[in-house]
Amino acid sequence: MTPARVALIGFGTVGSGVARLLLEHRDRICRSAGRPVELVRIVDKDLTRPRNVRVPAELLSDDVGAAIEDPTVQIVIELIGGIEPARTIVLKALQAGKDVVTANKALLAEHGPELFREARRLGRSISFEASVAGGVPIIAALSESLVANEIRSIHAILNGTSNYILTRMEQRGVGYQEALAEAQKLGYAEADPTLDVSGADAAQKLCILAALAFGVQADWKCIPRQGIDVVELADLRYAGELGYTIKLIASAEVVDGKLDLRVCPTLVRHRTPLAEVWGAFNAVEVVGDAVGRVFFHGQGAGQMPTASAVVADVIDLVLGRAPITFRMLPIGCDPARGVPLADPKEARSRFYLRLRVVDRPGVLAEIAGILGRLQISIASVIQHEPDPPVEDGVVPLVIMTHAAPEGPMQQAIEAIEKLAVVRDKVVRFRVQD
Amino acid sequence: MTPARVALIGFGTVGSGVARLLLEHRDRICRSAGRPVELVRIVDKDLTRPRNVRVPAELLSDDVGAAIEDPTVQIVIELIGGIEPARTIVLKALQAGKDVVTANKALLAEHGPELFREARRLGRSISFEASVAGGVPIIAALSESLVANEIRSIHAILNGTSNYILTRMEQRGVGYQEALAEAQKLGYAEADPTLDVSGADAAQKLCILAALAFGVQADWKCIPRQGIDVVELADLRYAGELGYTIKLIASAEVVDGKLDLRVCPTLVRHRTPLAEVWGAFNAVEVVGDAVGRVFFHGQGAGQMPTASAVVADVIDLVLGRAPITFRMLPIGCDPARGVPLADPKEARSRFYLRLRVVDRPGVLAEIAGILGRLQISIASVIQHEPDPPVEDGVVPLVIMTHAAPEGPMQQAIEAIEKLAVVRDKVVRFRVQD
Repeated sequence: MTPARVALIGFGTVGSGVARLLLEHRDRICRSAGRPVELVRIVDKDLTRPRNVRVPAELLSDDVGAAIEDPTVQIVIELIGGIEPARTIVLKALQAGKDVVTANKALLAEHGPELFREARRLGRSISFEASVAGGVPIIAALSESLVANEIRSIHAILNGTSNYILTRMEQRGVGYQEALAEAQKLGYAEADPTLDVSGADAAQKLCILAALAFGVQADWKCIPRQGIDVVELADLRYAGELGYTIKLIASAEVVDGKLDLRVCPTLVRHRTPLAEVWGAFNAVEVVGDAVGRVFFHGQGAGQMPTASAVVADVIDLVLGRAPITFRMLPIGCDPARGVPLADPKEARSRFYLRLRVVDRPGVLAEIAGILGRLQISIASVIQHEPDPPVEDGVVPLVIMTHAAPEGPMQQAIEAIEKLAVVRDKVVRFRVQD
Repeated sequence: MTPARVALIGFGTVGSGVARLLLEHRDRICRSAGRPVELVRIVDKDLTRPRNVRVPAELLSDDVGAAIEDPTVQIVIELIGGIEPARTIVLKALQAGKDVVTANKALLAEHGPELFREARRLGRSISFEASVAGGVPIIAALSESLVANEIRSIHAILNGTSNYILTRMEQRGVGYQEALAEAQKLGYAEADPTLDVSGADAAQKLCILAALAFGVQADWKCIPRQGIDVVELADLRYAGELGYTIKLIASAEVVDGKLDLRVCPTLVRHRTPLAEVWGAFNAVEVVGDAVGRVFFHGQGAGQMPTASAVVADVIDLVLGRAPITFRMLPIGCDPARGVPLADPKEARSRFYLRLRVVDRPGVLAEIAGILGRLQISIASVIQHEPDPPVEDGVVPLVIMTHAAPEGPMQQAIEAIEKLAVVRDKVVRFRVQD
């Protein structure tokens, strides 16, 4: 049996995990792939850094070009991340006749359609199970298992860092900064955590899921998003009192034939599957018209979970399934075939509002008046007697609304923030019931 | 594009769902399958029963042979369930050169290896996503997405009827009989619910998952099992007090290189994914050495969820992926390649015991003495002061043990049941932490 020959570009954490699976578990991989899978080249610019896998020295090189051009290599695994040089490497690998496996969500969110069209033109394929939710097989679910369905919605926790931070805040009662520092210490968060906590990472992943499930080509930068850096411990406590927890939810939902995409901290009802996702885990809930609600939960990042997905893609390629699947994906096809995007202002939701207001008669009436004039009705209010009494006379007020469109809600908040009795910005989260 | 031609054998609830998808959503199915999928024959012995789909009269027939022998048909969907005539139909379809899609867990649990060997010999394939956990793509996960892993364990809720009954008992405080009657009224349970509530159905499904994940050929009838008909409302209350709920768990777990299989009511810790599976849902938790813990949750039965899985299999066949996957499955292969089965008596677990004992001094000491002599140590005890006082002087006593092997536990229970102060049988469930 001719071995399948693989080049690995990017020998960082996930790359080392892939090398571990391919080198230390050859027999298992061979049994699953039907023939030997040989890792023949490993490329990284830093070859001296310590790694938790021993690889034969002759495999290592810093020459990307030589690996991609190697005529004996059939599969190139791209694990360097980011846009460039990853984009060029993927394009060159395709042009050199290789199939590509990647975990690069930023690249796919930004250049997916271009890369997929190029791969199709060249009769090659791109596999990307590891790009969203790590070891959770959500790409396979959307592109294979659920294809008999019209997908109605996706609600997902796609950023493990954010979920870890929110979990620590809720379970340990620590503030955002302290939880972030802890996540950084444990390696769950980067020194600059912006990409994770701003919701950008989740928006990129949502973009990939939405392309698969709804055939849309959305610009991830245009997806309305709010990060978790605005969530305070107080919000988690009020949410808890109302029967909810707060999660950074990436959602794609078809309403009246149009697709609403967004990433934002969201109140999720206790003891529902998404609410019970703790720590650095990821989860995706898909609703299809036939299958109903299906829920997937697992490790969204980390060396071995991500490597598990990358190697499954390699095996899929070696077996010959991947090209068949790739041919049918709606990414890089005529976007007119996809579900049209909704106006973000029209999306309806219940809302959680937290305000700091001056503690005097008539305040609630003023606020309720603004909401009422915009046809937003109040479902519940929390205003606790301050204990100990506050010195500045400013107290928190929490309002949960019934479903209302985003646009009027935004108008209401702007009007409320102008009231003399309201201090600071209004904190506003969506509620998912 | 030549259409793929499909015959449907069995036009009951799921069969009608499959017909709905294939007939009412032709465009969608064609887009996913790359060419039209034509349902050309529907066979059932009862053609007059009302169904929630309109089908052209010329498709309907009660002649199985004609459908299977039809040379224009490429795919036969078997949805009649049970062993015979399903087994003969599947064999004849394979022999007539058709690929088979089935949702028949009983057939696969009993005759899977034989049917798979025959399909391989004939160069055909059998697809069976719908046979376990309905719309939850667990077969695809184990046979494709997780193949880079060595699977360590599977813990699953595979019987929706049992889970519905336990949910109603816990959430509404009703007894087993009342919850069962309600499940029957809603169509979740058969008039004779034995197959579901005895754990037999779950054992059949576990057998299929174990074959895929561990390459074992287990006889489902030999899998140790206990049904939910022994669970009393009191057990759910005591479990809740200890921080657990009770679920019918089907488990396959490798310990010291050997595979322990069993189906039994199990205490599952609150706020873990399996504990939060409510109603008629199914869920599967898989642990792989690379991916860690992955959890799947969805509708395990019902017309459209099951049809979703059946039609996904049909599409997989039409695209040409299914034969590749089928070739690599470890079912019907040399069983010596699989993980050896463990002696059920050696499996260690924590245990929950509920006894009815005479309320007098020294009783706990007698029971604890028996446990101690068998090296079983007690983790906690619940004995409430009876309120109102009991007339017969018999009170419930609940003991939670630390981990102990099944064998000594069984011995201990036998000895305890012989004590003069112990009334009735000891109720014994496993605990999953």
